[in-house]
Amino acid sequence: MNFHTRKWIKPEDLNPNGSLFGGSLLRWIDEEAAIYAVIQLGNSRVVTKYMSAINFVSSARQGDIIELGITATHFGTTSLTLHCVVRNKITQKNILTIDEIVFVNMDEEGRPTPHGKTHITYLRDRTFEEADRAT
Amino acid sequence: MNFHTRKWIKPEDLNPNGSLFGGSLLRWIDEEAAIYAVIQLGNSRVVTKYMSAINFVSSARQGDIIELGITATHFGTTSLTLHCVVRNKITQKNILTIDEIVFVNMDEEGRPTPHGKTHITYLRDRTFEEADRAT
Amino acid sequence: MNFHTRKWIKPEDLNPNGSLFGGSLLRWIDEEAAIYAVIQLGNSRVVTKYMSAINFVSSARQGDIIELGITATHFGTTSLTLHCVVRNKITQKNILTIDEIVFVNMDEEGRPTPHGKTHITYLRDRTFEEADRAT
Amino acid sequence: MNFHTRKWIKPEDLNPNGSLFGGSLLRWIDEEAAIYAVIQLGNSRVVTKYMSAINFVSSARQGDIIELGITATHFGTTSLTLHCVVRNKITQKNILTIDEIVFVNMDEEGRPTPHGKTHITYLRDRTFEEADRAT
Amino acid sequence: MNFHTRKWIKPEDLNPNGSLFGGSLLRWIDEEAAIYAVIQLGNSRVVTKYMSAINFVSSARQGDIIELGITATHFGTTSLTLHCVVRNKITQKNILTIDEIVFVNMDEEGRPTPHGKTHITYLRDRTFEEADRAT
Amino acid sequence: MNFHTRKWIKPEDLNPNGSLFGGSLLRWIDEEAAIYAVIQLGNSRVVTKYMSAINFVSSARQGDIIELGITATHFGTTSLTLHCVVRNKITQKNILTIDEIVFVNMDEEGRPTPHGKTHITYLRDRTFEEADRAT
Repeated sequence: MNFHTRKWIKPEDLNPNGSLFGGSLLRWIDEEAAIYAVIQLGNSRVVTKYMSAINFVSSARQGDIIELGITATHFGTTSLTLHCVVRNKITQKNILTIDEIVFVNMDEEGRPTPHGKTHITYLRDRTFEEADRAT
Repeated sequence: MNFHTRKWIKPEDLNPNGSLFGGSLLRWIDEEAAIYAVIQLGNSRVVTKYMSAINFVSSARQGDIIELGITATHFGTTSLTLHCVVRNKITQKNILTIDEIVFVNMDEEGRPTPHGKTHITYLRDRTFEEADRAT
Repeated sequence: MNFHTRKWIKPEDLNPNGSLFGGSLLRWIDEEAAIYAVIQLGNSRVVTKYMSAINFVSSARQGDIIELGITATHFGTTSLTLHCVVRNKITQKNILTIDEIVFVNMDEEGRPTPHGKTHITYLRDRTFEEADRAT
Repeated sequence: MNFHTRKWIKPEDLNPNGSLFGGSLLRWIDEEAAIYAVIQLGNSRVVTKYMSAINFVSSARQGDIIELGITATHFGTTSLTLHCVVRNKITQKNILTIDEIVFVNMDEEGRPTPHGKTHITYLRDRTFEEADRAT
Repeated sequence: MNFHTRKWIKPEDLNPNGSLFGGSLLRWIDEEAAIYAVIQLGNSRVVTKYMSAINFVSSARQGDIIELGITATHFGTTSLTLHCVVRNKITQKNILTIDEIVFVNMDEEGRPTPHGKTHITYLRDRTFEEADRAT
Repeated sequence: MNFHTRKWIKPEDLNPNGSLFGGSLLRWIDEEAAIYAVIQLGNSRVVTKYMSAINFVSSARQGDIIELGITATHFGTTSLTLHCVVRNKITQKNILTIDEIVFVNMDEEGRPTPHGKTHITYLRDRTFEEADRAT
């Protein structure tokens, strides 16, 4: 699994108790998962259909950096299933895991349509010269 | 179940496909559930611990009015389990259902602590004269 | 009057003095009043035309839960007059009252048009089985 | 009256009908009025106590530039009364007028306290060399 | 140079260290510069093409009031160059300066097009009776 | 250079002309650069001191996915210099480049303090098993 998008917890992201507001976190996850689905399916008309249960293992506080990891786990005919992990970037402590987020590939009229993809593909030109020498 | 908070879908709530962004909806649900938990437990130190699976049955579009319904389904020693329904206010069409959202009651040091509540209680002074003659 | 929408005061809602930013509160009121008008008039093309004077009786602080109550007080030919109360959900302390918020019913070209409504109507299917057993 | 703060109407500021959301406008007004009060009273602990009635004369659309004008009209012992006009920057068409916005000067414990000001004062060093050669 | 738009630093504008988030400030500058360009060129189809280097001289804290000053420094055939200063409204302390922000005037197809302007023009009806008796 | 954070351009990110608002983009860049600096310096008290000139090469539209790439180019005694590229994730087309973004490492009193770092370091536990099999 690769961890791409990061967030720096700012006052605007907090609940009244001073820890990361769960709703903000869910908003970030849905955007990151949609981005992954759009890239893998090569189609921007994707819709979230299902999320499996979510365990909020730990929270985050102001100033923490978190990172969101997504990977595809199943390619259906019109669907794509993703697995999501959110963790603290510095401590690597798990914040939450969502086993399955299912997107459906839509046509221009908003009906499910086959996407023709069967496995994870890469944008090689981007990763050609670079190992994951990540920060 | 009572439906309290409503939202009017504005451009700022849309995904790039022009329908309600799922992440915005999840954000609203988490806030509404937390409000319900704070009121029932009489304690503002509550944290979301678990959400059961989410089926996105239908979406909403700009100008739609949606309403969020929450009810308590189980009172544990330190936890409270809620059930959540989101639907279109005008058409009454279901948008999504979350069977269980579990909150934990915390003390000042952030540790789970018994809340002493066993059933739904009401703020009678508010509802005394009024049936649900809701809009 | 029924109180529907609630808000949980988060850091993003505060003014620099640490109390609820009045502008945020006015934004919530305008949305809630518009929702009420859209539902009562059965038309999403409504515009705010007038608000009577506003007395800010008390404020709210981070972690407070507030609720917004709206009721229709007058049905004109093309207009609808609403009354609004905002109060602290827990203490029931009044935060502000707006005697009149006037909306005008518009046609597709944006001109005032009669709405044909003369009194408050209900969405019975929603309230059929349920008294206001509100949280 | 001087017009300082301007806003460029973006998609995030629109209501579902595609015109400027009234609640966004009220939020901007409250911030601009508070800024004026803080500057005139030389005290950042000011609170909005009252707004007189608001007539929404015209609206604004995406891409419009609006400007907010505020001037002090009365200096009480602990209060300051402001007058506010919002208009379209290009057409100069009035959008709304609020005759009175009253702020109260607070001490550190949050009690009203005399501000000792009796008339509008200027930050001369700023305006010394410059007529209002404003855009 | 005239200073128009002001901001009151609220919790939502802070970075995790409690000072003004630089990204929020850059967002405000880009909007204010675009407003100036739209007004001077009499065309709302303007795009930011270039910003010269930015020195963050000092920061701002919650409760501070800052003001943004913009002036045109060069009129090209299809471009307009602006100079920007941001300072603390009360202390007049400089926060940052951007020597050049270049906008390009576009036609309806999004191609650069001559704007025909050669110098700063004023909206006289606004400034006629008023010197910059700014707050 | 590694590209981590991605954004999906939504209506809330657009300027009135319907393309990505430059100010939103600058806000994202400042957050991503701060995140990189915090991780590399192992200190959350970092402040942006300087950005070199910015060429806005191309824009982005609703539905586009963009990605932000940051790499460290110079380690000073108390400073860290970063290089930033923003590009369209799908087309790989460059949106903008910032040659130098300089952060300063601060101590608890807000004074520049040596960070003791001289080169890019990695969080190996994260990247151990994984090449950049990025989406």
